[in-house]
Amino acid sequence: MVKVLIIGGAGMIGWKLASHLAAGGEVAGRRIGKLVLHDVVEPAVPAQAAFEMRAIAGDISLPGVADTLIEDRPDVIFHLAAIVSGEAESDFEKGYRVNLDGTRSLFEAIRRAGPGYRPRLVFTSSIAVFGAPFPEEIGDEFHTTPLTSYGTQKAIGELLLADYSRRGILDGVGIRLPTICVRPGKPNKAASGFFSGIIREPLNGQEAVLPVPRTVRHWHASPRAAIGFLMHAAGLDTAQLGARRNLTMPGLAVTVAEQIEALGRVAGPRAVSLIREEPDETIQGIVKGWPRSFDPRRALALGFKPDASFDEIIRIYQEDELGRS
Amino acid sequence: MVKVLIIGGAGMIGWKLASHLAAGGEVAGRRIGKLVLHDVVEPAVPAQAAFEMRAIAGDISLPGVADTLIEDRPDVIFHLAAIVSGEAESDFEKGYRVNLDGTRSLFEAIRRAGPGYRPRLVFTSSIAVFGAPFPEEIGDEFHTTPLTSYGTQKAIGELLLADYSRRGILDGVGIRLPTICVRPGKPNKAASGFFSGIIREPLNGQEAVLPVPRTVRHWHASPRAAIGFLMHAAGLDTAQLGARRNLTMPGLAVTVAEQIEALGRVAGPRAVSLIREEPDETIQGIVKGWPRSFDPRRALALGFKPDASFDEIIRIYQEDELGRS
Repeated sequence: MVKVLIIGGAGMIGWKLASHLAAGGEVAGRRIGKLVLHDVVEPAVPAQAAFEMRAIAGDISLPGVADTLIEDRPDVIFHLAAIVSGEAESDFEKGYRVNLDGTRSLFEAIRRAGPGYRPRLVFTSSIAVFGAPFPEEIGDEFHTTPLTSYGTQKAIGELLLADYSRRGILDGVGIRLPTICVRPGKPNKAASGFFSGIIREPLNGQEAVLPVPRTVRHWHASPRAAIGFLMHAAGLDTAQLGARRNLTMPGLAVTVAEQIEALGRVAGPRAVSLIREEPDETIQGIVKGWPRSFDPRRALALGFKPDASFDEIIRIYQEDELGRS
Repeated sequence: MVKVLIIGGAGMIGWKLASHLAAGGEVAGRRIGKLVLHDVVEPAVPAQAAFEMRAIAGDISLPGVADTLIEDRPDVIFHLAAIVSGEAESDFEKGYRVNLDGTRSLFEAIRRAGPGYRPRLVFTSSIAVFGAPFPEEIGDEFHTTPLTSYGTQKAIGELLLADYSRRGILDGVGIRLPTICVRPGKPNKAASGFFSGIIREPLNGQEAVLPVPRTVRHWHASPRAAIGFLMHAAGLDTAQLGARRNLTMPGLAVTVAEQIEALGRVAGPRAVSLIREEPDETIQGIVKGWPRSFDPRRALALGFKPDASFDEIIRIYQEDELGRS
């Protein structure tokens, strides 16, 4: 029986992961005995599970909070908590406090709890660790030169994860998530919001705005693929990783035009007609600095599975969010 | 008139830099008005200079110390201070405290002193940010996957330097120094010590031990070249760097055999005969994980100058340390 801790349990991915664990009852091939969900606001707990569940609210960057979470020695820790890109950029201190100090505080709590305690720690990093200029396809050995404080904090988290793993303090796997698409919920003001919006809004019979040219290419994974990455990372034989604990996750490199074609195939021309082009130079400028595609050979060789197609990404949204099958 | 601050002023490079500044009286094409040397032990101050000099002892990782150093708004800051590789590996907490917290504490003091204050900050990083496996020649876009806590702390310093520069808090240049050779002083127990020892000891009429095969290739720069890098970084037009503030410095990729041939040319066969081969498997194992050569195109294009040859590296030692001309 293993104990599982999810830090960042109130977020979209955290909730989906908790639901997945509650439904399956297993992680890394072992039965779950207990699941603790932590976030700065108290996370919702899945309705049913064959094991004990607990939700805790707190700030891991504050002294002692991480120690409390580590008290009952969780075997598997998913560290998903982060101040997101936009907020880490507008609030310098908060971004560094939560994304850097919070992560370090968690790793230090684990160090203080050892020796003899060495949990599997799955850390969600991001393709934001990369900054332009870069090649059309970014390889596994390309340097991390982030262009945001969020990306900087994630890249630092990766370095700490690798060093603490090398030291035997924890057994870390860092996974650089693609942009998650189709993100459920309401439209938001994030610069990347349109990638999901141009699919989600038409599927809900609403108009969507497309602020960039259709030639823009980007790197996507469905929420379901992301949960698959987390579960696979939790069970991975880390002897295969050597000292390089951080992996670019496989995604789909598709253009906006290809996204829209897929929408047409899955939902018909009426859905496509709800997309309105409204060029936005600011968003175009931001998107220009983003990765377009990767060559994630290591992750593929290690068994991480991308979505099969963008059509599938759309169907996953329909099944998981709109209840269609 | 500019004010200059050297943090790590008691080290070998710090002392040589201070002496160079005292002798020339200029940095970045401007006259120096004041030089402050800081270190954990009070640094020696060069005998003569046409400007005010001050030595301060303290620990920049402690609250308030960096603020005090920033109080009179130095225009150029050389941040050389670090717990070295071996000690950062054996004393985990001290390494992170000085190399990570100390660096961040300096950057934060600068942030608190702004806006309107944005010093040039030259940060000495290291080729220890790279970890095997790597190609025979490491390019400027190769990822940083350090295999020591020291290398991890330097790589984190690079990321912070880039982000604080992007934010306009400071105007940073990070320079990844090659192994410094010929390092003056007594033999030490550092795994890399023999690279200097096999030259320095014979030039001083003493026997030297060579623990690795002569085919071992490594990346070297003289102390004089290192001072050249620091001075060039202090005066660099950083608009040329964009967001990528960290540069691999040019060095010489030479094998131990080539080092010994150069010693023969410069000092004759008697010097060479003082080298005794005594294979050490531990040192050979460590050295196997070290970079052999780089392709430092960016730094060369930006005007950083390597030593002309390993013969010159030996002559620099003779001139600067043995007083020969």
